[in-house]
Amino acid sequence: MDSRTRVLISSVRKLMRRGAFKNIEKIVCRAHTADVASLLESLDSEERQQTFKLVGPAERRSEVLSYLPEDLQEEVLRTLPKEEIQTLVAGMDTDDVADLIGSLPEELSQSILKSLVKEDQEEVADLLRYSQDSAGGIMNTEVLALRDDLSVSDAIQSIQNHESDSLVAHYIYLINKNSNLVGVLSLKELLLSRPNRKLTEVMSPDVIRVRVDTPAKEVAQIVEKYDFLSVPVIDENNELAGVITVDDVIDIIREEAQDDLRALGQVASIEDDFSFWGQLASRLPSQSLIFVGGMLSFLVAYWLLSLMDRPLWLASLGFLPALLGLAQLTASQSAAVALSMIREGELHRRVISEHLLTETGISSLNGLTLALLLGGASWLAFGDLQVSQILAGIAIVQTITIALIGNLLPILLATLKVNPRVGTISLLSVVSGVTSVTLFIGAIRLYYGVAFV
Amino acid sequence: MDSRTRVLISSVRKLMRRGAFKNIEKIVCRAHTADVASLLESLDSEERQQTFKLVGPAERRSEVLSYLPEDLQEEVLRTLPKEEIQTLVAGMDTDDVADLIGSLPEELSQSILKSLVKEDQEEVADLLRYSQDSAGGIMNTEVLALRDDLSVSDAIQSIQNHESDSLVAHYIYLINKNSNLVGVLSLKELLLSRPNRKLTEVMSPDVIRVRVDTPAKEVAQIVEKYDFLSVPVIDENNELAGVITVDDVIDIIREEAQDDLRALGQVASIEDDFSFWGQLASRLPSQSLIFVGGMLSFLVAYWLLSLMDRPLWLASLGFLPALLGLAQLTASQSAAVALSMIREGELHRRVISEHLLTETGISSLNGLTLALLLGGASWLAFGDLQVSQILAGIAIVQTITIALIGNLLPILLATLKVNPRVGTISLLSVVSGVTSVTLFIGAIRLYYGVAFV
Repeated sequence: MDSRTRVLISSVRKLMRRGAFKNIEKIVCRAHTADVASLLESLDSEERQQTFKLVGPAERRSEVLSYLPEDLQEEVLRTLPKEEIQTLVAGMDTDDVADLIGSLPEELSQSILKSLVKEDQEEVADLLRYSQDSAGGIMNTEVLALRDDLSVSDAIQSIQNHESDSLVAHYIYLINKNSNLVGVLSLKELLLSRPNRKLTEVMSPDVIRVRVDTPAKEVAQIVEKYDFLSVPVIDENNELAGVITVDDVIDIIREEAQDDLRALGQVASIEDDFSFWGQLASRLPSQSLIFVGGMLSFLVAYWLLSLMDRPLWLASLGFLPALLGLAQLTASQSAAVALSMIREGELHRRVISEHLLTETGISSLNGLTLALLLGGASWLAFGDLQVSQILAGIAIVQTITIALIGNLLPILLATLKVNPRVGTISLLSVVSGVTSVTLFIGAIRLYYGVAFV
Repeated sequence: MDSRTRVLISSVRKLMRRGAFKNIEKIVCRAHTADVASLLESLDSEERQQTFKLVGPAERRSEVLSYLPEDLQEEVLRTLPKEEIQTLVAGMDTDDVADLIGSLPEELSQSILKSLVKEDQEEVADLLRYSQDSAGGIMNTEVLALRDDLSVSDAIQSIQNHESDSLVAHYIYLINKNSNLVGVLSLKELLLSRPNRKLTEVMSPDVIRVRVDTPAKEVAQIVEKYDFLSVPVIDENNELAGVITVDDVIDIIREEAQDDLRALGQVASIEDDFSFWGQLASRLPSQSLIFVGGMLSFLVAYWLLSLMDRPLWLASLGFLPALLGLAQLTASQSAAVALSMIREGELHRRVISEHLLTETGISSLNGLTLALLLGGASWLAFGDLQVSQILAGIAIVQTITIALIGNLLPILLATLKVNPRVGTISLLSVVSGVTSVTLFIGAIRLYYGVAFV
């Protein structure tokens, strides 16, 4: 989050506490709609409803709504009267409306869909047909397309007469009488051309385009490669169906990056949801897998090394692979969460301390669960309380400490404006591995010292 | 890489083999300059020099040059006569020239700098002052700025008279007589305004801007948040110094994502360099760290469990943490490399098989090194050839198999258009962990079965 937005949020919060809604209204009316959306996100549900009413004319409120994540769009719309919902949705781009409708409960989405003017209704219904991962699912259907037989001055005239404000106007796409895409022209090129020339004479005829079923990932690669501001989308009949703009492409790239972080960090869901339960749930799947793996390793050792016939201090070492695997996982998961938080721009002091507190809570609960599981498993295997206690204790201690270090290290590097280096996580996992080996073997040595030599 | 580019490359390669340079010239002259750059990247050094000469007029060659990575820019320029270098560099944007000069050897960069016209020389020298991670280091100084006291028709006139083709023309930035940034106007808004109005009446006065020392990461967040096409940069004196466009922002976001992959995957360098030695070198730092960690764990076990006095089969288990850590690392590293390759758009059949071959080579050499190290360490500890052989054998087998699975799994998922899920790497590390435990303990059981019971 940039400093502008931070200042906005903190001043509105102060005014909110004093109930100074007149002043809030003044601030909110002057701020950029993207900033207002950030502000709304940071408020609680009731404050959000109150503040949204202060945003100003319907046009501005539609814009703010477009910037909000879909769950908050739904929350805000739910409380409004039907007529107002219709006005607000009518002011949004069709691709945003399609996204919104796709995520709303059936009843609300049907009533919104019916309230749209016929033309928009068809466009939104069209958009809903396409997968969210394809060009059709992310394109905007409000595209500035002109017939190729116009003259330059006609074209300028026609743009000036165009009422809609939401049309995408970096490039003008030219279509022939069958609505086929035949050329492209930037607004600047149009401005620089002599008024009496035909568009066919000044346009570039070889338009790089994508199809409605082109995967979103490929669209991103094309826009990125050619440094485009937008790319036209054609449908099955070769007709111009819409346009994908560079800001949608940035979203695709961010999502890919988050997917990678999630996969490598072994965290189920890291974006949007830095809350306690969200974070706890997102780490469970991998933890369960690694725990099961640790138990399998134990069973292998149990049978192959006949651990049932060994002295207890030796047999308990069969749980070492489980401890090591879990230590390693905690390191990856916490580093991935911290990196994701940094990338989302969530790095400022209040958030950091809150985040570390949440992480301590999560890792305590995580550690406790693992302690119970490991303690239980070892109790089943050996029926010895001391071994179970040692294992449980180490599970708690290592989970909490590694989680804290794993979070602090990337955050520390980021505040020093250093990008996390290759060695960071390796060092972390060496430290965590050696620590858990030392703790475990040390504790066993301490308690079963007599059995040694 | 998109299908367009792939077709271009394969047809030029065929023509190249037949020596049909006339035909290559025709293709290369018609292709998009970004595609020509991709083509040049895929050729060897000599073919690249030959093909670059066929690109057409100097203006096009400058564009192609801008799209090339810096090491290839240098390679191409080195062989050209001095006058031609000057022409080509003069046709590039100042920010690209600054990047190029920053990466060239002193002698060449000085001669290029001297060859520029005085104004460009100063601009490039200015740009070189700023860090590559700050707004100043990535901005383009050729910005369309107009005085705020012009009328709308004067402004259109002035844009039409502007000779330079490279100026960024999505927004027009307005400055007062002190060169301070006072407003912004989109080209479309200009076109829609009545000709006799003053720019001050139609502009938006509250321009969101960054400073030359704003970190690149923050610039990216701002452009992303407000869906800007570009953001103006002001210097220490509040004067408009340049502009950062959305395509530069996409580069910043990609780099951040690559940094994260690198950090979490524990690979030193994954972009640009998928070559054998590059890949081998990039994995060494983490492998050394994890190996040292494994040895520390062994020493802990050695002293605390008095392994020197234990039967050999038991003592050798002290190397289990090292084996497990290395297995886990191989899984992360290979998955990170595969993901990075997918994100760079390098996923097509010929490249995949080449990649898997390279990976097999790398992991064989990696495995061999680790085998020698582990074998050597265990020989030092126990002086028993059989234990050393077992450890060495498992190091080789697990490194190669895990590397292959770790590469194949994400690639397989990507060809199925599925994003790698949270469980992917966890499953991989469970499989690799259990496998290496089973192999190791199984082998020991087999060889030292007599010592059991």
